[in-house]
Amino acid sequence: VSAGRPRSARAAIVAIGDELLEGRIVDANSGWISARLAELGIKSDVFVVRGDDADALEGALRELCAAHALVIATGGLGPTLDDVTREAAARAAGVGLATCEEVLEGLRESYRLRGREMPASNVRQALLPEGAERMANRCGTAPGFRMPLGSALLAALPGPPHEMRDMFERELAPWLGTRFAQRSSFARARFLLAGLAESAFADRAGSWMERNASPRMGVTARFGVLEVTLHSEASDAERARALLEPRAREFRQRFGSAIFSEDEARLEFVVGRRLLELGLTVATAESCTGGLVAELLTEVPGISAAFREGWITYSDEAKVRRLGVPRELLEKHGAVSSEVARAMAEGAARESGAELALAVTGIAGPGGGSAAKPVGLVWIAVARRGVALAREMRNPPVDRASIRRYAAHAALDFLRTELELA
Amino acid sequence: VSAGRPRSARAAIVAIGDELLEGRIVDANSGWISARLAELGIKSDVFVVRGDDADALEGALRELCAAHALVIATGGLGPTLDDVTREAAARAAGVGLATCEEVLEGLRESYRLRGREMPASNVRQALLPEGAERMANRCGTAPGFRMPLGSALLAALPGPPHEMRDMFERELAPWLGTRFAQRSSFARARFLLAGLAESAFADRAGSWMERNASPRMGVTARFGVLEVTLHSEASDAERARALLEPRAREFRQRFGSAIFSEDEARLEFVVGRRLLELGLTVATAESCTGGLVAELLTEVPGISAAFREGWITYSDEAKVRRLGVPRELLEKHGAVSSEVARAMAEGAARESGAELALAVTGIAGPGGGSAAKPVGLVWIAVARRGVALAREMRNPPVDRASIRRYAAHAALDFLRTELELA
Repeated sequence: VSAGRPRSARAAIVAIGDELLEGRIVDANSGWISARLAELGIKSDVFVVRGDDADALEGALRELCAAHALVIATGGLGPTLDDVTREAAARAAGVGLATCEEVLEGLRESYRLRGREMPASNVRQALLPEGAERMANRCGTAPGFRMPLGSALLAALPGPPHEMRDMFERELAPWLGTRFAQRSSFARARFLLAGLAESAFADRAGSWMERNASPRMGVTARFGVLEVTLHSEASDAERARALLEPRAREFRQRFGSAIFSEDEARLEFVVGRRLLELGLTVATAESCTGGLVAELLTEVPGISAAFREGWITYSDEAKVRRLGVPRELLEKHGAVSSEVARAMAEGAARESGAELALAVTGIAGPGGGSAAKPVGLVWIAVARRGVALAREMRNPPVDRASIRRYAAHAALDFLRTELELA
Repeated sequence: VSAGRPRSARAAIVAIGDELLEGRIVDANSGWISARLAELGIKSDVFVVRGDDADALEGALRELCAAHALVIATGGLGPTLDDVTREAAARAAGVGLATCEEVLEGLRESYRLRGREMPASNVRQALLPEGAERMANRCGTAPGFRMPLGSALLAALPGPPHEMRDMFERELAPWLGTRFAQRSSFARARFLLAGLAESAFADRAGSWMERNASPRMGVTARFGVLEVTLHSEASDAERARALLEPRAREFRQRFGSAIFSEDEARLEFVVGRRLLELGLTVATAESCTGGLVAELLTEVPGISAAFREGWITYSDEAKVRRLGVPRELLEKHGAVSSEVARAMAEGAARESGAELALAVTGIAGPGGGSAAKPVGLVWIAVARRGVALAREMRNPPVDRASIRRYAAHAALDFLRTELELA
């Protein structure tokens, strides 16, 4: 391979296969490759998924190679007729296919070792576009290859993720390092926030979110949890960090205790680990979330040292019998009220002997709402040393499953903020 | 919207977001949309992933709309400045953006209901390209839209999967049906199975799974639930059905009671609705699943008529105190045993007064396993009329969260098969 040094290190990633295009499997390869390329200082502009169609793929490779310095393809290297990457790459480059004797011998040998005859179809796997360099596959039979295509470099990797990753690390990453000297360096910070709506976040973030801001900010929302990234780019790593750090400091000041982590994306893991660190025990009492809060907390390995037990008191009767919620409270205020949420939390703490208890009661819908208590209304309470505090949340009228997720996150975040005061 | 009938019903799907392009999340939307479009007789040629970059997206939309009859975009419709789909679509079409008063009023109303002021940034969500038709979002705040772009039709859906799917079904699918006449007809059958490993399924399905089989069979496995599709294609609907139906009948015979539905993909909905139909009540007692079984069951709207209550008895102490599990059983057989699973189910039935009770106890890992009782070992029990039956399951040594999902599905399937005998 002897392509000139490309003008800029921008990459395109192509995943190939009808099973992707028909929605039978999801392409996780492209994201993995993109993240690895970023670490090598190469930025990806686009992912493309194409089916097992040599003509369409030939056109796509030609277009992508005209617009990018590097094109990485995954899939379509198997032995069957619907594996078209070799043909498409050769045609796009205007070259023929040639049998690679080394590959063919390797294939024959691997069948000999298993005491089997090599199927004739396997010969296809030994074909490579003329001028391509073979990349060895240590985890499967299909070799990969890399070649110049126009002014770009094309690398073809297998589709199965473990084969692709192994070949990327062993055969491609070191080679890319020598071709694409890092033109720019990146620095990145990540913040996880809870207790703030995305739009309220946007208002407080203001101009930091503008498209051309440096560092650049990205936000993803997931049921009340926000993931915020800051990304800076400069000629070297030190400069990239120098661009990033003042903004990261300001960010911490501006958002303070809404930030629950700069590392772990899952609120329940942060809360669970904090309970374990503090040596505190917890119990849960849930109505509308139906066990979701306990389920999230008990995802944390080792949580049995902190999590005592949980109740799913779906009916009023269960709230009275299991948690000792006074009937008068239910009659006077209704099951979805500050009073009942607090009584549930206090009851769970008392019954379990746990130091903390978390309670959730609300209207997840689709039925059961009223003007005064609409679908989406949720009361959450935390009991500590026998005393409970409650918070109201009013969710947007989304579907039942989403309301439950929002409520569970709000409950965990309430517990988190209480633990901050520990 | 008044684009002429497109020349051929070929679609491109664009997923938008830096979080996709940077590999932080995987695009599962495109595959879902492609599968749904196929059912409507529209074939997808390509998926494209682009970042939150209005210029690049504008170019991509223009190119894709020149080459396809239909372009479906997901993502980039949120309130923040990095949500660029509206701008990119307007620019690609050479039109401006206009505020949709209906959307704005809806946004204001939803904030009013929650007793809050609408943040200024939310006004962005009410902007639509001129000439675009709004598509309502019942699960979130960002509306979608559809519009002509060149000779193609562009539809923009939100990124969060549940919002996207709901909008696709309600707002887009019926409309596509009237725009894109089907050239060839499809027939499709879907079967949901539980209690069968994927490899055992493949052995029993045999040649039906071959790539060139007609009808074509596809299988997706999700924590012990298999989704099997049969797909046939012919010049008209009647012929497609005639190809499909004999195979569907054979399939029902071959897989019998392992099929839990031909419609609803979620086991908990099938079980929950069956409980409601039969007028039976249920309680749950969970250890390793930590509330997941109850959480799944209580996702079913109206389940409060059947679901009495649930216990998360994580510790031995809780098993004894809440469910009356005899201490001798715990000492003699350990918490993960047939005996304790049965005692938990019987205790939950007795305490709650429910007609049925479901219990799960197992080792979800990563710690706590031994040679005799490895990580992945789970006992599940169903109590009915005071008597409990137990089943052992040994999961592959996958991660904690997966073992819990497998166990919860197995428990629900155990309850389902018991209800079949009702």
